[in-house]
Amino acid sequence: MPRPSGRMPDQMRAVSLERGVAKHAEGSCLVRFGDTHVLCTASLEERVPPWLRNAGRGWVTAEYGMLPRATGERMRREASAGKQGGRTLEIQRLIGRSMRAVVDLEALGERQITVDCDVIQADGGTRTAAITGGWVALHDCLDWMHSRQMASKTRVLKDHVAAVSCGIFKGEAVADLDYDEDSAAETDANFVMTGSGGIVEVQGTAEGEPFSRAQFDALFGLAEKAIADLVDLQKQAIGG
Amino acid sequence: MPRPSGRMPDQMRAVSLERGVAKHAEGSCLVRFGDTHVLCTASLEERVPPWLRNAGRGWVTAEYGMLPRATGERMRREASAGKQGGRTLEIQRLIGRSMRAVVDLEALGERQITVDCDVIQADGGTRTAAITGGWVALHDCLDWMHSRQMASKTRVLKDHVAAVSCGIFKGEAVADLDYDEDSAAETDANFVMTGSGGIVEVQGTAEGEPFSRAQFDALFGLAEKAIADLVDLQKQAIGG
Amino acid sequence: MPRPSGRMPDQMRAVSLERGVAKHAEGSCLVRFGDTHVLCTASLEERVPPWLRNAGRGWVTAEYGMLPRATGERMRREASAGKQGGRTLEIQRLIGRSMRAVVDLEALGERQITVDCDVIQADGGTRTAAITGGWVALHDCLDWMHSRQMASKTRVLKDHVAAVSCGIFKGEAVADLDYDEDSAAETDANFVMTGSGGIVEVQGTAEGEPFSRAQFDALFGLAEKAIADLVDLQKQAIGG
Amino acid sequence: MPRPSGRMPDQMRAVSLERGVAKHAEGSCLVRFGDTHVLCTASLEERVPPWLRNAGRGWVTAEYGMLPRATGERMRREASAGKQGGRTLEIQRLIGRSMRAVVDLEALGERQITVDCDVIQADGGTRTAAITGGWVALHDCLDWMHSRQMASKTRVLKDHVAAVSCGIFKGEAVADLDYDEDSAAETDANFVMTGSGGIVEVQGTAEGEPFSRAQFDALFGLAEKAIADLVDLQKQAIGG
Amino acid sequence: MPRPSGRMPDQMRAVSLERGVAKHAEGSCLVRFGDTHVLCTASLEERVPPWLRNAGRGWVTAEYGMLPRATGERMRREASAGKQGGRTLEIQRLIGRSMRAVVDLEALGERQITVDCDVIQADGGTRTAAITGGWVALHDCLDWMHSRQMASKTRVLKDHVAAVSCGIFKGEAVADLDYDEDSAAETDANFVMTGSGGIVEVQGTAEGEPFSRAQFDALFGLAEKAIADLVDLQKQAIGG
Amino acid sequence: MPRPSGRMPDQMRAVSLERGVAKHAEGSCLVRFGDTHVLCTASLEERVPPWLRNAGRGWVTAEYGMLPRATGERMRREASAGKQGGRTLEIQRLIGRSMRAVVDLEALGERQITVDCDVIQADGGTRTAAITGGWVALHDCLDWMHSRQMASKTRVLKDHVAAVSCGIFKGEAVADLDYDEDSAAETDANFVMTGSGGIVEVQGTAEGEPFSRAQFDALFGLAEKAIADLVDLQKQAIGG
Repeated sequence: MPRPSGRMPDQMRAVSLERGVAKHAEGSCLVRFGDTHVLCTASLEERVPPWLRNAGRGWVTAEYGMLPRATGERMRREASAGKQGGRTLEIQRLIGRSMRAVVDLEALGERQITVDCDVIQADGGTRTAAITGGWVALHDCLDWMHSRQMASKTRVLKDHVAAVSCGIFKGEAVADLDYDEDSAAETDANFVMTGSGGIVEVQGTAEGEPFSRAQFDALFGLAEKAIADLVDLQKQAIGG
Repeated sequence: MPRPSGRMPDQMRAVSLERGVAKHAEGSCLVRFGDTHVLCTASLEERVPPWLRNAGRGWVTAEYGMLPRATGERMRREASAGKQGGRTLEIQRLIGRSMRAVVDLEALGERQITVDCDVIQADGGTRTAAITGGWVALHDCLDWMHSRQMASKTRVLKDHVAAVSCGIFKGEAVADLDYDEDSAAETDANFVMTGSGGIVEVQGTAEGEPFSRAQFDALFGLAEKAIADLVDLQKQAIGG
Repeated sequence: MPRPSGRMPDQMRAVSLERGVAKHAEGSCLVRFGDTHVLCTASLEERVPPWLRNAGRGWVTAEYGMLPRATGERMRREASAGKQGGRTLEIQRLIGRSMRAVVDLEALGERQITVDCDVIQADGGTRTAAITGGWVALHDCLDWMHSRQMASKTRVLKDHVAAVSCGIFKGEAVADLDYDEDSAAETDANFVMTGSGGIVEVQGTAEGEPFSRAQFDALFGLAEKAIADLVDLQKQAIGG
Repeated sequence: MPRPSGRMPDQMRAVSLERGVAKHAEGSCLVRFGDTHVLCTASLEERVPPWLRNAGRGWVTAEYGMLPRATGERMRREASAGKQGGRTLEIQRLIGRSMRAVVDLEALGERQITVDCDVIQADGGTRTAAITGGWVALHDCLDWMHSRQMASKTRVLKDHVAAVSCGIFKGEAVADLDYDEDSAAETDANFVMTGSGGIVEVQGTAEGEPFSRAQFDALFGLAEKAIADLVDLQKQAIGG
Repeated sequence: MPRPSGRMPDQMRAVSLERGVAKHAEGSCLVRFGDTHVLCTASLEERVPPWLRNAGRGWVTAEYGMLPRATGERMRREASAGKQGGRTLEIQRLIGRSMRAVVDLEALGERQITVDCDVIQADGGTRTAAITGGWVALHDCLDWMHSRQMASKTRVLKDHVAAVSCGIFKGEAVADLDYDEDSAAETDANFVMTGSGGIVEVQGTAEGEPFSRAQFDALFGLAEKAIADLVDLQKQAIGG
Repeated sequence: MPRPSGRMPDQMRAVSLERGVAKHAEGSCLVRFGDTHVLCTASLEERVPPWLRNAGRGWVTAEYGMLPRATGERMRREASAGKQGGRTLEIQRLIGRSMRAVVDLEALGERQITVDCDVIQADGGTRTAAITGGWVALHDCLDWMHSRQMASKTRVLKDHVAAVSCGIFKGEAVADLDYDEDSAAETDANFVMTGSGGIVEVQGTAEGEPFSRAQFDALFGLAEKAIADLVDLQKQAIGG
């Protein structure tokens, strides 16, 4: 049962992680999962949210957006609609939790890092690309702080984190769904894992018929392999 | 390692499903998972959302809310804040997907059923109680339609759907987290499954350290058992 | 000219005041005027609104809401609409003024009590039920404070307050309008009075033709009797 | 007990009704109750609200606003705050009901008249001035329609409507409160009545201590006299 | 090619500047450019915007609004629409910049003056009338402060500022467009200049075909003459 | 008086116009004015705004946004703030008017083209870059329609349009301000002109002291030369 892109079931799209793409940001990365392109920046601010004041630790948060014509049909600009939709809020909460899962907030000190993930072009899997590229931007922001002796990068950043979506497409478990697959998949699951293989977040949804535990296990296996590959790419990107 | 409530690891709280609690609604159910009480109503409207007009099928959607003092500390009323928070939007999207997973929208016809889930009192697990009780309200709404020969309940409602949260609390996998456990759990996962054991939605989140696949599998096992029990309670409640 | 419910002109619906219904709130009361059910909670906070800071006195405020399917037709959730309607704002301002009319704000100290009135089921007279039940929740909150020696209940709470709606239905003055009467009444008036018979608020509106002063006086007389009865029920409820 | 303005208890401020002050509006009136100045316009539109379509009758509605520096201290512009406050909504609902009480909506036909009342300068009693002047603007709009044979003014406009606020100031019942009296009054009541003496709306509020029925009756008496005088002024203004 | 009003190409409408029209404001002016009437008030507040705190200087800002029936067709009230439109924001930013161009903010001290410009009646050129009248209100506010020795008017207010719109109407350059001309003009330009002839703001827009530099120069010449006349009228108005 | 960048007074930054950068859009262009990078897309929709229905012509509109970290300090995301700021609305209105100045809306037919200009990186002059690049995206969208015989590109697109900002920096007139110059300039002016030298829009603002007409004329001269160069670059870019 061939995939629209001709990929093997466990084959990801071409992934690239381009650092230093934003002149002003402390860290930045343009991540590409095939035709899905997300610009990630990490911005340091010497303040924390009100509810964290004088708590002796910092915060990492994320925001997500999509350019209106990142998609096949133009979507209404959320700034013009006057609010962020439920999907946007859900995704940016996920990215924020994923980043915080590998950060030691005490070691960060009373500061906030905001990881902005803006989808320049969408072809499925924007949230998983955002997490994978967002980590690189976060890493570079901590590098920037490290070189200024503001914080110890190795103490603050405990591990890698990356993500992939897998799904059941025409009855078969496949990795890294593109838009054509995503819109036709029976089941869609996002996995967020660390460099050491720990699970940060799992979200599986039956788009049509409920799925079985065996199917879910198959998706899990694909994700473990794909995320290990993504972590390797992150390591290459940061020149490690 | 005893649970604060003294329950066994696989033991749910006392669950009750009280039907017909809302005079005006086509279907209603007050669901209690221990001290978590959610009032679910199903409202039938002879119209569909604009994007579904003349498509020959209906829609089931859900809304979720919490009374300001359902919680230990009073929370700001979302109507007064001027918008629904990200958590609310996320939960009501989950409930809606769960309901639709067991409904044949063509058989429903060009109508909309809205399942409103309002938390009267919160003690953890409000979204899973809402799904479990929401199904009963939905069932009774379809019963109401069936008795008026508007639709065939057996054709529209394909299966049961129920949900439970499980988590790792002090290192042990336990079922149906209450608030004390939820706020201290290392990992929290919500499972939504059908009466025939199909999986509709899985969401697992590491609150602190990442979790292992073995831990996740343990939670899965607890959920399968708990949801089977909840489906039995639904069957008793609808007098089946 | 018989009333739809068969009641006598001066006869109220069955009224009940059920205390302690909300586990977390300092005071709570589920009030029923027939099929109108309002859940009232009183929440204590150790802060005052910004404009009252360091003024040496406290504040009592109220918020009002309605579950979407409390009514015959489902109404849009105000949290989803993004704002509270004019009717909601008008009612919650009335409830707040009514509560403050019997509270000594200096004796309360620099604290705020919020009385939340949420209509679980509506059948006319929700605002008057809310005031009547809100007082019981407020009383119990002050009891809670009294027993912790935070304030003297007898000094803070100066009197009872209760409310009823009366109207001209098919030419006759009747007490405690239910929904069927309310929607057909020529004139509708709400009265808020204290236990000692003082008037806190009077609002009379001609729905169709203007009314005469004699008609208004007849409504006033019905209200005085009904509110005296409601105050007696409050006394019984608080174990007086 | 002298009033700050030196007026007798039953003496209104100087009232003027200046017609035709807005070049574009079908009807307009600048009403002055002493230093309270309200610009009222009546605007005709050949459409009705969606819920009235094809119902064979029209609608009269009102909107109320206040220029930011109409008051002693500058108030935030509601357009900039992003919403109308509860007080504004309450007042414009009252004005609208008052206008509709003297209009035959069937005779008006499927059209809408909007009465805009904008407070140019405030010194107490803005809502009662708005009703009194709004009626003149409405009358002139119907005159405009009458002269174009669009509707019969005498059939549409059934009566006059005017309003006054009365209150207990330093223990005495006085008519037409100005700002100094209004902010110190123990009790404040607004009365809306027709030319033939029918009551459209009564609103009495205890600002401090509850008031007695005898006090309320005294206010009622003052209002009847004052409104009769206002109706006479309306008659003079429209050249009757 | 005669103008609809019969005016000469360089002839302004009748302009009047009426001071002291708002009882409560520190400075006020009702400015009339023909049938365009704008009520301008200047309000002093002993506070500055958050971003200016402890900066040792003050701020002057402006807000602009239009009564709903200032125009030929009733426009929706921005307070009811829930936001100020782009045109309103653009105009009030222009008025604010114009006022600040002639104010020494250090000499003002840590205070804010808000110039509110509310269009009572519109017939073209509301923003230029607002600037011209707003200056008078600002002047009188500074006079008020001067007489109370709060600030030196001569040090704070460095110059006059006034504005006019010019345009190409039926091929000819004309000054002070009224509504009939404005809606038919090919090119519309607003000029803001000081008493000493300095330029504060220039905005030229081709409504239809692009315009030439020669045409723009012709408009500029008309504006210089008109603004000099407006400054003379300001001088007469302040009795200087 | 050297410019921070070392450029000559009439020297623009390096300008590039990269076409076809957005896979999904009918036309797209990434425009760079030095370190200012704006992604422009043109999106065709087969519908017109409600007020243009059945008018026999189309519409061209524009929207403008900025990624949060396009700037030196992170700016709040407008989607999260819940509204577009005054500056954003002002800029997108300017871009829209500029595009429409060179489009024959009748020849376009009943369709809408939306030109989205999103600032990826900001270093001054974002609105003028957006107009210059937006024209290329618009051109390519019309090319796309032309090749599908939906409209005649040569009839719809009447001319080029491009823009530049000029200003007085340290007393000297310079072209194409970058951020360092823009924040220190005494006067800032934006010019929008067509390929045939017609003026579409002129906006000059005194940031500090008012400017003279001679200074403004100097800016105008620089702009005419710069825009002619930009039009040449557009011609090269579209392969002319």
